[in-house]
Amino acid sequence: MIGVAIIGYGYWGPNLVRCFAETDDCRVVAVVDQSPTALASVAKRHPQARLYADWREALADPEVDAVVVATPVSSHYEISLAALQSGRHVLVEKPLTETAAQARHLVEEAEARDLTLLVDHTFIYSPAVTKMKELIGSDDLGQIYYYDSTRINLGLFQRDVNVIWDLAVHDLAILHHVLESPPTAISANGVSHVQGAPENMAHLTVYLENGAVAHLNVNWLAPVKVRQVLIGGSRKMIVWNDLEPSEKIRVYDKGVSVTGDLEEIYASRVSYRSGDMWAPRLATTEPLLTEAAHFIDCIQTRATPITSGRLGLQVVEMLEAATRSMKMRGHPVELSPQRRAS
Amino acid sequence: MIGVAIIGYGYWGPNLVRCFAETDDCRVVAVVDQSPTALASVAKRHPQARLYADWREALADPEVDAVVVATPVSSHYEISLAALQSGRHVLVEKPLTETAAQARHLVEEAEARDLTLLVDHTFIYSPAVTKMKELIGSDDLGQIYYYDSTRINLGLFQRDVNVIWDLAVHDLAILHHVLESPPTAISANGVSHVQGAPENMAHLTVYLENGAVAHLNVNWLAPVKVRQVLIGGSRKMIVWNDLEPSEKIRVYDKGVSVTGDLEEIYASRVSYRSGDMWAPRLATTEPLLTEAAHFIDCIQTRATPITSGRLGLQVVEMLEAATRSMKMRGHPVELSPQRRAS
Amino acid sequence: MIGVAIIGYGYWGPNLVRCFAETDDCRVVAVVDQSPTALASVAKRHPQARLYADWREALADPEVDAVVVATPVSSHYEISLAALQSGRHVLVEKPLTETAAQARHLVEEAEARDLTLLVDHTFIYSPAVTKMKELIGSDDLGQIYYYDSTRINLGLFQRDVNVIWDLAVHDLAILHHVLESPPTAISANGVSHVQGAPENMAHLTVYLENGAVAHLNVNWLAPVKVRQVLIGGSRKMIVWNDLEPSEKIRVYDKGVSVTGDLEEIYASRVSYRSGDMWAPRLATTEPLLTEAAHFIDCIQTRATPITSGRLGLQVVEMLEAATRSMKMRGHPVELSPQRRAS
Amino acid sequence: MIGVAIIGYGYWGPNLVRCFAETDDCRVVAVVDQSPTALASVAKRHPQARLYADWREALADPEVDAVVVATPVSSHYEISLAALQSGRHVLVEKPLTETAAQARHLVEEAEARDLTLLVDHTFIYSPAVTKMKELIGSDDLGQIYYYDSTRINLGLFQRDVNVIWDLAVHDLAILHHVLESPPTAISANGVSHVQGAPENMAHLTVYLENGAVAHLNVNWLAPVKVRQVLIGGSRKMIVWNDLEPSEKIRVYDKGVSVTGDLEEIYASRVSYRSGDMWAPRLATTEPLLTEAAHFIDCIQTRATPITSGRLGLQVVEMLEAATRSMKMRGHPVELSPQRRAS
Repeated sequence: MIGVAIIGYGYWGPNLVRCFAETDDCRVVAVVDQSPTALASVAKRHPQARLYADWREALADPEVDAVVVATPVSSHYEISLAALQSGRHVLVEKPLTETAAQARHLVEEAEARDLTLLVDHTFIYSPAVTKMKELIGSDDLGQIYYYDSTRINLGLFQRDVNVIWDLAVHDLAILHHVLESPPTAISANGVSHVQGAPENMAHLTVYLENGAVAHLNVNWLAPVKVRQVLIGGSRKMIVWNDLEPSEKIRVYDKGVSVTGDLEEIYASRVSYRSGDMWAPRLATTEPLLTEAAHFIDCIQTRATPITSGRLGLQVVEMLEAATRSMKMRGHPVELSPQRRAS
Repeated sequence: MIGVAIIGYGYWGPNLVRCFAETDDCRVVAVVDQSPTALASVAKRHPQARLYADWREALADPEVDAVVVATPVSSHYEISLAALQSGRHVLVEKPLTETAAQARHLVEEAEARDLTLLVDHTFIYSPAVTKMKELIGSDDLGQIYYYDSTRINLGLFQRDVNVIWDLAVHDLAILHHVLESPPTAISANGVSHVQGAPENMAHLTVYLENGAVAHLNVNWLAPVKVRQVLIGGSRKMIVWNDLEPSEKIRVYDKGVSVTGDLEEIYASRVSYRSGDMWAPRLATTEPLLTEAAHFIDCIQTRATPITSGRLGLQVVEMLEAATRSMKMRGHPVELSPQRRAS
Repeated sequence: MIGVAIIGYGYWGPNLVRCFAETDDCRVVAVVDQSPTALASVAKRHPQARLYADWREALADPEVDAVVVATPVSSHYEISLAALQSGRHVLVEKPLTETAAQARHLVEEAEARDLTLLVDHTFIYSPAVTKMKELIGSDDLGQIYYYDSTRINLGLFQRDVNVIWDLAVHDLAILHHVLESPPTAISANGVSHVQGAPENMAHLTVYLENGAVAHLNVNWLAPVKVRQVLIGGSRKMIVWNDLEPSEKIRVYDKGVSVTGDLEEIYASRVSYRSGDMWAPRLATTEPLLTEAAHFIDCIQTRATPITSGRLGLQVVEMLEAATRSMKMRGHPVELSPQRRAS
Repeated sequence: MIGVAIIGYGYWGPNLVRCFAETDDCRVVAVVDQSPTALASVAKRHPQARLYADWREALADPEVDAVVVATPVSSHYEISLAALQSGRHVLVEKPLTETAAQARHLVEEAEARDLTLLVDHTFIYSPAVTKMKELIGSDDLGQIYYYDSTRINLGLFQRDVNVIWDLAVHDLAILHHVLESPPTAISANGVSHVQGAPENMAHLTVYLENGAVAHLNVNWLAPVKVRQVLIGGSRKMIVWNDLEPSEKIRVYDKGVSVTGDLEEIYASRVSYRSGDMWAPRLATTEPLLTEAAHFIDCIQTRATPITSGRLGLQVVEMLEAATRSMKMRGHPVELSPQRRAS
């Protein structure tokens, strides 16, 4: 029975507590939050959990074997490092840390101590992403041309991170996971519409080694919520609309033959949809529950998590590059192989 | 009774002939196309129109007072210039010409001869764009923050122009018309997925003098058709979904107060839609019919067309800048005031 | 070259004239309408057509070989009968006539004179209906359980017919065409919300010989336009949304096994979509163009039209039964085999 | 601190336990279920709750002040009666009982003992229904013409009740709540597609005293999930799409004037949407949480619940009438004023 302590009971914390409370082979030993109100609501929902106002108390608790860090990004490094050094397995909210250097340190620390370090890129555990990776892996789409994401809504203006660190982070992890091709350069444009606040709207272009190009449109100041990703291949294309209740993934059996004679292509006006569409059935499992079980399993079997510290590091490197490019008004920032090798 | 000759009976030509055939104070005197098949179908639908294989014959026809140029972009300049020099009023397909220099010449030629020169930026005459201009003009949206357009579908790969000249051209004309602020710089990224063909996917960022930023996502290789524009203001925001049958324009009475205390903004997590939504009734007039009537009216009253040659020139200048930036992988291209002044 | 006269240039007439003007082996000889304005607009669009104010003039015109009747229902019988008796082939707007007796008379007249009688049930010629008939014919859906249609919008209040004759008429023709099972009884409820006007809202239940049940929801007083039909089978189900631009037909590979053990069915809570979905590509031909060509072809080959007079008669019989049931507040009206045999 | 026992931990029970666990002034004292697996999962999520296999044990528990009955309909009467007779306040799943006689008995028992009896018609507590009642109450819609509901999906085939008792029950409660006009008669058609199982598809027509007509389309065997209600008034109309994430309620400022001259109405073809549309912002509170708090409040203040036993009785009377009509293939069943008075 693995004892878990959840640190941070703000926006995402309650979901983490609920999921670990429902996961086998573990129990929620403690919940940490500075706010008495937050702890009071924990007491009501999970009377058995011990309540701490300071995360150090949780690390001092002998029944705590693993720690879940759901605090603001700025504190991820300090808490996670202390947890690892005290011999605890760690699950950290995304993004892993504020800098790649910090992330690299955590990864090395976990590897040195043979402890599990999992970054909470929840989407990676969703049935939709799992299905997309399967379709792309089996070469159904042919050569991948592009990944085009629109991830916008009227969202929280965060003080410590800009919209790239809050929203684009999802796509950077997903495209790294499903396309399996390292990024070579990133170009980003962004704007802040609130004096003194971080950028709340940004557009990224990510160049991948295999020639594919990814484009991300992220915005905290949009009137509607959109969660749509297009993946274009030489044979088929995918539309992932995560807000669709039952058909999140749609596969269109239409692309354009790059080998075909140009004349042909010019000759016939291509209609805007000239093949069948297919929406595969998706599992209905809750991603966070799957992730929680995977975390416990990795601790028990010493397996490397799907969303490992190294994946988290990769993502932070891309976030750094994107932010740097944004300061240069879109000037591309190269990601050197050596840095990519991490 | 103004005699009109339509030159080019390919994709768009039939619509132009139909609309002028239904417009008052004018009649379709002649239709020109090199293809006998095309002319045969004209003969069937419009037995009264004279048929020519060469546009020079139309200019030689004394009953032709105005010419509509619906040929490939590469021939716009030559035909339009000859028409103006022969004293004909001219309506040209968008984009006006292949280069800003050509466009400037046509504008000067028309002005020197006091002839009407109208560029067929059809969207400008749509009830949706008219309503957006009205809402923005009456300051309902407050300060405009951004214009974000997604204009994608599985479309014709054109040999002579890239996707920017085919699709982004619409947004460049629309944002110039509704935002009424000159562009100061353009950054563009683009890719071609068909060996030797022009770019079929591109992303543009247009910086406007009033501080607003426009972003355009255009793609000929998308599995689905999307025609969506978001306009974000400090007070309200607009979503224009041109594929919606009855509610193309939706106005959301929610923005973010830039004057408000940052703490406040950070304090409360903004929900992704926290106000009412309103979809104004739109007229159901056909844009091209409105444009045809406007062209005839301008000829009769000597008024300057809404989509004048100068607007068309502005658009071509932006298209040139975007294409140049694309060649530099997104490096921003400045639009000097002097050039903007044209 | 078959000479065609279109009688009635109101709402639908212009489409009929346009389609016959574009159809091979025929030409629009004459257009008839009582309104000078209507005739003026014909003159502008189709200068070659002769214009008549009275349909008798068209029947007196020796160049008229076939007549298209697009007048109010109340005059269908008189005009069509006169046309047939003068040896003309006839295409009539739906519904064929006001009474089954009249319809039967027209059918007999046409058969006696070996003339083509086609009823304009346009939907039957749409790619969507063609695809549904193909899927059901090939037994992909298994046993058909039900046909459930919602056909509502804010529509014209017609003075001479109620909403059943205006909207349900489409479904009665379609279900007869695709399910190929005669109706045994009809029950209908309807209401009029405008004093003295015909019913503008109605719900029909049609019992078919093969055990399937059809339900139709038709309404002239709805705030939104809906054109959706569900067809449920033992193996698969179809959703036909005619307002969808590109995926009008969706096939869900899920039903419920009626042979299966009840316990099993009770045991597992069936999710609301537990199989893949598939949207077959549909042709993009215009139904009315297909119908016009089919009419000309039937005249030339003496073939029986898909939407023959007999189909039109069947539909009128159902409309009569539905209206009778509606007067009895839903009491089912039997359709005797003898009457069904017509 | 009111002690609550939840009886039945099947499909809905877990939500009830979670909501009461989060509600003030009460605590979850006990959870009852025959299944050890169910109780095990309770133990994991709510370690503090006492677990019973038999509901009689819960009634024997002195710390239990109120009972929540979430068992199959067939046992509602026996358990609720015993609970009331033991002096417990009762919240029962809908429908209240299997027969109106049983419902009437429970209502009388609760009134005699001055105990709170609340029926879990959850939708009544949803922000959408609250807003609709507000709009209709303030006469924004004018005279109400109709209530038209489509409530279909691929759902559980229940052994003890037909689809009317499972799905139509929602609309019968909602329309009674928002339209505030007693039903005078009900006509229903239904079919079972699974040998020996209760009807899984049905269509109801409910005639209300104020002249409005309600129509309900319910189906357990539909390929897609639809939760849409149209309410038509003389001035405005509502579309309630409960699956919409952010704009569940849409108000269309368009109807048809019944006072207006018929000629006028006939003269102009009404477009299918000729006014503005407005989507009011809705609260985001969870209906079941609101209901739980309301139940506790009614116990404390002796107020009559919004979804009182009498409302529950009304609904059961309608369900009985609908089932009776269905057996008669749609023959309308009158609801006598005396019975409606209950």
